[in-house]
Amino acid sequence: MRVLGVDPGLTRCGVGVVDGAPGRALAMVGVGVLRTSAEEETPRRLVLIERGIDAWLDEHRPQAVAVERVFSQHNVRTVMGTAQASAVAMLCAARRGLPVALHTPSEVKAAVTGSGRADKTQVGAMVARLLRLDGPPRPADAADALALAICHIWRAPAQDRLRRAAAALRPEGTTAP
Amino acid sequence: MRVLGVDPGLTRCGVGVVDGAPGRALAMVGVGVLRTSAEEETPRRLVLIERGIDAWLDEHRPQAVAVERVFSQHNVRTVMGTAQASAVAMLCAARRGLPVALHTPSEVKAAVTGSGRADKTQVGAMVARLLRLDGPPRPADAADALALAICHIWRAPAQDRLRRAAAALRPEGTTAP
Repeated sequence: MRVLGVDPGLTRCGVGVVDGAPGRALAMVGVGVLRTSAEEETPRRLVLIERGIDAWLDEHRPQAVAVERVFSQHNVRTVMGTAQASAVAMLCAARRGLPVALHTPSEVKAAVTGSGRADKTQVGAMVARLLRLDGPPRPADAADALALAICHIWRAPAQDRLRRAAAALRPEGTTAP
Repeated sequence: MRVLGVDPGLTRCGVGVVDGAPGRALAMVGVGVLRTSAEEETPRRLVLIERGIDAWLDEHRPQAVAVERVFSQHNVRTVMGTAQASAVAMLCAARRGLPVALHTPSEVKAAVTGSGRADKTQVGAMVARLLRLDGPPRPADAADALALAICHIWRAPAQDRLRRAAAALRPEGTTAP
């Protein structure tokens, strides 16, 4: 399975592509950061992020996209930009029919370090170890994007089983709430 | 000047097109609400909103798009969906090179009713009066979209003058912060 992880943001949007499957070795396919200037107006910044994400999807053809789930409890000043950038990432993926999964920061940290309260250094170190890199990817947004992709590769099979089990329990013809 | 107003939302996204100029009569060109089901996943809902906005832009060819400015102080549960839908509206407009203006709810209320604290009923009544409609557009999201377009038609010239004045005061070669 090839997954594009996206750590959304207007100023820095981390993108990382990982190949792997649960119980097998992971391989980094690519990593980068899309940057837009705070001097540009938001609509233009969103267009630049759309072009960047589309270019990554075109080049690496992932089978799924994992985006960090944004919480409105975060820093009020930055949360709107994060929500807007994540909307663009979800849109680019869904337009191509790609499945989109959202994972919370603590799910991602727990997946790669074993603790949902791990700090950036720990996440970067584990991403480097799991992908056999010489050092933690920089900036942190790039490491976070790779961590999201790894988290998705490991969590997706369990999530699928849960979804199928829930569907089997529901009366026929009904849909999830 | 023809303006598309967008009152963003995932469940109901109001859209309204108005023709007019400051000091001249206004005319409603079209009004509607894009709806997506809460049973759909967010990425799919964003694709449906994108298609809807693109269809309105194709059909009515506005010269500018006015979108409600989203504040993160709003209801925490709904603000993320609103931010995501507004990102899609801004993206659709900016992709075509259309200018996008953001107006706050109180700017819009003040523009059409004279008071930034007017309620929904007052806004609906004034939108109906200004556009010579038989009654307030329903639902409120449709009336709000028209109010945004009216607000933009009236505020845009003053905003342009301010922008030009600010640019003239700045040393050459610098840009806005």
